Amino acid sequence: MADQKISPWRLKLHEIIYEADTPAGKAFDVGLLLVIVLSIVLVMLESIGTLNERYYWEFYTAEWIITIIFTIEYILRIIAINRPSRYIFSFYGIVDLLSTLPTYIAILGGGHNLLFAVRALRLLRIFRILKITRYIGESNRLLLALRNSRAKILVFLYAVVILCVIMGTVMYLVEGPENGYTSIPIGIYWCIVTLTTVGFGDIHPVTPLGQFIASLIMITGYGIIAVPTGIVTAEFSKKMKDVPINTQVCPHCNESKHLDEAEYCHNCGNLLNE
Amino acid sequence: MADQKISPWRLKLHEIIYEADTPAGKAFDVGLLLVIVLSIVLVMLESIGTLNERYYWEFYTAEWIITIIFTIEYILRIIAINRPSRYIFSFYGIVDLLSTLPTYIAILGGGHNLLFAVRALRLLRIFRILKITRYIGESNRLLLALRNSRAKILVFLYAVVILCVIMGTVMYLVEGPENGYTSIPIGIYWCIVTLTTVGFGDIHPVTPLGQFIASLIMITGYGIIAVPTGIVTAEFSKKMKDVPINTQVCPHCNESKHLDEAEYCHNCGNLLNE
Amino acid sequence: MADQKISPWRLKLHEIIYEADTPAGKAFDVGLLLVIVLSIVLVMLESIGTLNERYYWEFYTAEWIITIIFTIEYILRIIAINRPSRYIFSFYGIVDLLSTLPTYIAILGGGHNLLFAVRALRLLRIFRILKITRYIGESNRLLLALRNSRAKILVFLYAVVILCVIMGTVMYLVEGPENGYTSIPIGIYWCIVTLTTVGFGDIHPVTPLGQFIASLIMITGYGIIAVPTGIVTAEFSKKMKDVPINTQVCPHCNESKHLDEAEYCHNCGNLLNE
Amino acid sequence: MADQKISPWRLKLHEIIYEADTPAGKAFDVGLLLVIVLSIVLVMLESIGTLNERYYWEFYTAEWIITIIFTIEYILRIIAINRPSRYIFSFYGIVDLLSTLPTYIAILGGGHNLLFAVRALRLLRIFRILKITRYIGESNRLLLALRNSRAKILVFLYAVVILCVIMGTVMYLVEGPENGYTSIPIGIYWCIVTLTTVGFGDIHPVTPLGQFIASLIMITGYGIIAVPTGIVTAEFSKKMKDVPINTQVCPHCNESKHLDEAEYCHNCGNLLNE
Repeated sequence: MADQKISPWRLKLHEIIYEADTPAGKAFDVGLLLVIVLSIVLVMLESIGTLNERYYWEFYTAEWIITIIFTIEYILRIIAINRPSRYIFSFYGIVDLLSTLPTYIAILGGGHNLLFAVRALRLLRIFRILKITRYIGESNRLLLALRNSRAKILVFLYAVVILCVIMGTVMYLVEGPENGYTSIPIGIYWCIVTLTTVGFGDIHPVTPLGQFIASLIMITGYGIIAVPTGIVTAEFSKKMKDVPINTQVCPHCNESKHLDEAEYCHNCGNLLNE
Repeated sequence: MADQKISPWRLKLHEIIYEADTPAGKAFDVGLLLVIVLSIVLVMLESIGTLNERYYWEFYTAEWIITIIFTIEYILRIIAINRPSRYIFSFYGIVDLLSTLPTYIAILGGGHNLLFAVRALRLLRIFRILKITRYIGESNRLLLALRNSRAKILVFLYAVVILCVIMGTVMYLVEGPENGYTSIPIGIYWCIVTLTTVGFGDIHPVTPLGQFIASLIMITGYGIIAVPTGIVTAEFSKKMKDVPINTQVCPHCNESKHLDEAEYCHNCGNLLNE
Repeated sequence: MADQKISPWRLKLHEIIYEADTPAGKAFDVGLLLVIVLSIVLVMLESIGTLNERYYWEFYTAEWIITIIFTIEYILRIIAINRPSRYIFSFYGIVDLLSTLPTYIAILGGGHNLLFAVRALRLLRIFRILKITRYIGESNRLLLALRNSRAKILVFLYAVVILCVIMGTVMYLVEGPENGYTSIPIGIYWCIVTLTTVGFGDIHPVTPLGQFIASLIMITGYGIIAVPTGIVTAEFSKKMKDVPINTQVCPHCNESKHLDEAEYCHNCGNLLNE
Repeated sequence: MADQKISPWRLKLHEIIYEADTPAGKAFDVGLLLVIVLSIVLVMLESIGTLNERYYWEFYTAEWIITIIFTIEYILRIIAINRPSRYIFSFYGIVDLLSTLPTYIAILGGGHNLLFAVRALRLLRIFRILKITRYIGESNRLLLALRNSRAKILVFLYAVVILCVIMGTVMYLVEGPENGYTSIPIGIYWCIVTLTTVGFGDIHPVTPLGQFIASLIMITGYGIIAVPTGIVTAEFSKKMKDVPINTQVCPHCNESKHLDEAEYCHNCGNLLNE
């Protein structure tokens, strides 16, 4: 990431900010983690009306202090790296910028509500710091399993959505606006609420026929919830079942992925262990 | 599907309408997909009372345009194919017809509500177009896994229904009509809502004994939701386990269980395919 | 089940009533199935107040006809079998008796409500008739998998119940009677409703602290719902994984269940295939 | 646990209290189990306002009797063991003390509510007695599987919490305080209720956009509930796969992976255990 020509203090800065192996780098990460968590807690508390009225100036000051810390960090990150554009247009670079901008824009006026949501994006920053932990391997494996079963899950969700559109229309026709099913989209919304077993109860069938159809939908939902689970589980098991294939590498052709019991390489036919 | 005697322009038409490998065929499918999605969105918006009143004529016009497009497509499909009866009485042929008819029947008067539901069937048409994607293999595998475990799932659902009938009757007797359990069918409906963990809350136990029985039902539901999942997952794992290791047998030592990419037998070191 | 001394007509009767391989036996089973389903539908309809008032005599007559059919069947079953006590005290013998008695007891007066529940037990009778179908093998396999994982599931449910007792008490203390948590048992009931993801909404946390604890309970419930599923799935997979153990039988000692690669019998030490 | 120098009656006492192999030890455990269950039931009944008013003195007396029994048991446990500190500072030692103290502290006055919660901890005592059953092996295996997949589950729950924070903020902005989403924490609480498929219905989306976002959240929740299940199931499957094949190694050819019942090696035909 860093060429050899950069000056020693920038190398040092790079080590502290971007890496986490040295004591200084670890301290920087822990400190940043605390500021990020604090900033998120602040956004949440600010949203509580009574608290915001009473502690308006305290919130305002804290927000500015955090913004300034984030701004300094952002500038340091740009300085420390050899090719700033690599950082600025990376995923985390954009998240970092979005964590800083809202407060500045807020002085220019307006958009308070929208800026709130943007500020919540600061949470994404925690992900970067967590790269220092051993959890990153696990999350990669989780993502890999999800990505491998993506096609199957999409097919499944598509089938669920179509089922909801059809059954939502049926319920709209059966129950009608007088029982809360005021339109087809509302019927579909109710059907999703029911099929996913959430069941708010804000809308619920009243007529016997509607309750009968609802029962069928619920039992169907109960039966097909097994499908995504089955997909992901099979994927996880496959990952773990790769274990019987060992990591031995053929000394003749460098082919890997041999079965545990293999004595000859399946690629070149030579003995694996001489 | 098409004999050799049909004229070139019909062959061309067949290629465009039924296949998706050529640019023209792909363009036709994408265009049709858009019209279908548009027609479904239209049906939904139409069901919202306030929108329907304001934009009645816009909806009416759009509906007719879409119907005419679908009619032309339907006629073209019949022309393009050599034996039209094969298409007309196929699953998609009937769906296509049902997508077109409602608007025509509506002029003859009446049945508006029922026609709504039929129009929602247009959604099924998307399935055909999706055949062009790589998802069809996945959905076949999903359906296969579901079909293989059908007997087990049916036995399970039957046990669930019987449990609901018995517990629904018990809850009707325990809680009684004064707490909302006005009849045994209502009790069964409540029991299905509870066992599937949907929990609308429109009816809920009020007496201590009722709440105790409800707790038992919920814990049972929590415990047995594992069963369909276990069934489907075991089915998926079985399916996937077959994939990586093929059934090739070494012609020299008869060792089986070779990896898919294997060229040499891992047992005797000879070539697998000469 | 039947000794050789019984007369031919009793043998014939036994064949019709207890077996399902002959056309007569099959017809008897199908007829009985219809009567049972009818009797259950009747019990349900009778529980609907408005219907019961209007069709009181129709229901009364139908109930008596069904009871008389069941009584005749019960007597025939006793006659047909050689040792009646074997039938009478079997599970199905008792269910059959309980299907008949309520109507007779009802004339002697009283207990209408309790008799209702007993009559719903008729549903259990369907299980016997279903023995003729191919589903019995599947349901045996389901029951076997559940029985094998019984110890694990009980440990899990016990942990869930203890968690609910503790968290129910905590919620009672945090929310208090003014927010609907009127006693510890109610708190436990709410906790079960929440942990099993049913969520009626009849009682729900109102204070911020209560909502925070509820969030923890829900996320825990979401995380541990995996456990029973994992148990049952592993059990199902194990059943299917028995496949690698092949069905070869040793020609010397008749021991079965050999590993796929086995060349010598693991029981007697002789060659498996000579 | 017990040295050889302790006197015979203390050895006897240790056997009765700490072990469960002798009739006396078993009787002690069963008796203690009953008292513990009784004490927990008492705490629950006491929390019901109407019952507590009517039977105040009965509850008070029973509570003292149980406390005195627990105190005697606690003292006996300390006497019976050679190194009391080992017991006193063990997990169960502290639970035992917390089961006894609340009643004594209650005379000194105050803290009734908090003492309630502490008394519910008595439930944990049942765990110790259950060690005599065969369930302990199962629960160890459950805990092991959960511990092994802890990292994966934590990563998953962290992702869920972040998703809830972001979507909770979005819902707060979309629906606003007038529809019940009075602050971001309330939005997050609602999002957890929804994503975990609990769905109380105390707060629910009202605007069309809110209902659309809620639908997305529910379908996401339905899709990702598969992840923890997949993790735990894969873990269980791994664990169980080891069980049937033991680790015995043939003394003649060093072949491993023998079936549990194997007496002869399946590779060379010699006896496994001479």
